[in-house]
Amino acid sequence: MGFLAAEEQLQLLKKGAVDIVSEEELLKKLKKSEDAEVPLRIKAGFDPSSPDLHVGHTVLINKMKQFQDLGHQVVFIVGDFTATIGDPTGKNETRPALTREEVIENAKTYSEQVFKILDPEKTEVVYNSQWIDALTPSDFIRLTSQYTVARMLERDDFKKRYEESRPISVHEFLYPLMQGYDSVAVKSDVELGGTDQLFNLLVGRDLQKQAAQAPQCVLTMPLLEGLDGVKKMSKSLDNYIGVDESAKNIFGKTMRVSDELMYRYYELLTDKSIQEIETMKSKVEKGELHPRQVKVDLAKFLVARFHDEKAADDAELEFQRIFVKKGLPDEVPVKEFVEIKDVWICQLIKDVAFAPSTSEARRLVRGNAVEINGEKVKEDSLKVSLSEGEELLLKVGKKKFAKVRCL
Amino acid sequence: MGFLAAEEQLQLLKKGAVDIVSEEELLKKLKKSEDAEVPLRIKAGFDPSSPDLHVGHTVLINKMKQFQDLGHQVVFIVGDFTATIGDPTGKNETRPALTREEVIENAKTYSEQVFKILDPEKTEVVYNSQWIDALTPSDFIRLTSQYTVARMLERDDFKKRYEESRPISVHEFLYPLMQGYDSVAVKSDVELGGTDQLFNLLVGRDLQKQAAQAPQCVLTMPLLEGLDGVKKMSKSLDNYIGVDESAKNIFGKTMRVSDELMYRYYELLTDKSIQEIETMKSKVEKGELHPRQVKVDLAKFLVARFHDEKAADDAELEFQRIFVKKGLPDEVPVKEFVEIKDVWICQLIKDVAFAPSTSEARRLVRGNAVEINGEKVKEDSLKVSLSEGEELLLKVGKKKFAKVRCL
Repeated sequence: MGFLAAEEQLQLLKKGAVDIVSEEELLKKLKKSEDAEVPLRIKAGFDPSSPDLHVGHTVLINKMKQFQDLGHQVVFIVGDFTATIGDPTGKNETRPALTREEVIENAKTYSEQVFKILDPEKTEVVYNSQWIDALTPSDFIRLTSQYTVARMLERDDFKKRYEESRPISVHEFLYPLMQGYDSVAVKSDVELGGTDQLFNLLVGRDLQKQAAQAPQCVLTMPLLEGLDGVKKMSKSLDNYIGVDESAKNIFGKTMRVSDELMYRYYELLTDKSIQEIETMKSKVEKGELHPRQVKVDLAKFLVARFHDEKAADDAELEFQRIFVKKGLPDEVPVKEFVEIKDVWICQLIKDVAFAPSTSEARRLVRGNAVEINGEKVKEDSLKVSLSEGEELLLKVGKKKFAKVRCL
Repeated sequence: MGFLAAEEQLQLLKKGAVDIVSEEELLKKLKKSEDAEVPLRIKAGFDPSSPDLHVGHTVLINKMKQFQDLGHQVVFIVGDFTATIGDPTGKNETRPALTREEVIENAKTYSEQVFKILDPEKTEVVYNSQWIDALTPSDFIRLTSQYTVARMLERDDFKKRYEESRPISVHEFLYPLMQGYDSVAVKSDVELGGTDQLFNLLVGRDLQKQAAQAPQCVLTMPLLEGLDGVKKMSKSLDNYIGVDESAKNIFGKTMRVSDELMYRYYELLTDKSIQEIETMKSKVEKGELHPRQVKVDLAKFLVARFHDEKAADDAELEFQRIFVKKGLPDEVPVKEFVEIKDVWICQLIKDVAFAPSTSEARRLVRGNAVEINGEKVKEDSLKVSLSEGEELLLKVGKKKFAKVRCL
């Protein structure tokens, strides 16, 4: 195996990173690895209570891939110990206790998605229950003796909750320590995580020192904004692009992001360098490049990544057919419905206010003035169904467009 | 078995108690026990890292004895789990890690001393490692999820240290929870402890509730002041009367306490009622009773308790012989030495400044003017040795008295 020179590796790895603790140390580790031709062990954890990957997660996974491409060993830790406990206080509904079977099932689903990006051959998947379950009560005391309450309360969310008198259960102090102990168990050289994980990653560093291991370097990646461009991408906020979604959905959702956010997605989700992105931006500003084309390229990139090139081309063609060639305006109003199940087309036309009544709507359908996704509606008895997150483009007459979306 | 009426029991048990959580509940439990003729389970913990009992400890043990005399079952918990860990941070020197053998040895020593007061037949001695060692990591998470950080920081010493930015290790939050879990494990009805244990005892109450057990009542006893009358009696402060000390030492040390402290000792160490003590006090004030006699009675009581009546009588006679009959003043100066091993009598006389030189001291010995513990010193070559804590009374001429004490 041959490694790139450590300095070159560092330059590549720095892209997009927010915190690196520390660059000097990381460079040293990379040099040592290069000299000895021994790959570094790159740790990243995964909470199996939410198996579905969205592109927000891939920011981190891309960084893992980058390490992998540079010849290093990714150690993917499934946090099954914690997942099977859930939140014992029962207050945190997003943390239900999972059975062993559910954890394994979720980890499988997750792995399948992760391996759309990572090379399974260079990825070690381990379950942390393997070493956490083996801890004795004495081990627990020793583990927890290594951190003070004051330091725990320095963690942003703990600090905030403590100051606001919102409860923090004592067991919540154990989780960062167990996560840190994972680093000791797998002897990681580098741990990756979102910026919100910085504190926990540093705990790992400390525990390794106390276990007489070389402390891991820590590298955090930004949290990707969701489609709204404001909040962190998350399934519960419904502002996400799922890795497992259909090509059409990935393409469509990407096309919905703002121009500004689009550059951010380029930065965090693609291999494009900062310079390339700047060039793109300035071309758009000078009118040499249509922003829609930039967005189409991003959408195609994402479809290709999670499906394949052909799916990306097909999605683009479909998009062209429906939106572009039909003279669709850039801004199409969106009408959202909680449920769209066997809805009569005429009722739908009335509901989006493109006709004052269903009988008027029926007149429009019969007059060939109604299109769904670029195709004429021929039957006035048509029933329409959309599953969650899906949308269709409704066109009535020459100028009335609406995206009908099912929430 | 027959029980006293619950109300009568409560009246007896209240004597000397500082906190009772709560009287109503305790009365209910006593009533239930009386009706069903089932003894209550009275829990008390013991830290086997310091095996030597001093009379300060007996305040609590007397209360246990009282419960026992009323027909209840004492459950004596040896905190061996904690003792074998010690303080993993290594900062607390008073908490060295003990081996299993040391714990067992200390517990044996301690039991021997405790059973000078308690009835071994009505005392269950259990080691908490029995159930603590059986806890899995998941159990630990569940246990620690039952308390919040904020509540832990309400404990006086934690609060103080946190406010003063002195470190509290996370594992210190686990100890009250483990102690509380002991209550769940032994299904205690009442837990006894010093006033400094109130927080921990209440944790047991909470954990029992969460384990669907009837929560234990909590009864705290005051911490006995040491011989100095100011600080809590403790071995490290050398202001204690050890339960295992010689009759002579127990007697002698008791005679050293102030008149004020003497009444406190009566209250906390004897069976005398508050009223009897008040009567005694007023008699002393009126001159009907000599305070030294009151102190002698206390000293005899303590010797009798930890040795026997004969030893008490002997100690009194010895005291009379040495101190009283020889016209010893009430206040005898004390000369303390770090080591007294084979010290030449003439050197000692010079060291306490009863003679300007050893040759002058020799002249005094030869002139029959020197006494040790009321006996003439006949040989001017005498060597004197005292072990730690021991003392002797040195008399030179008619008016020079000194207690010589080895620290």
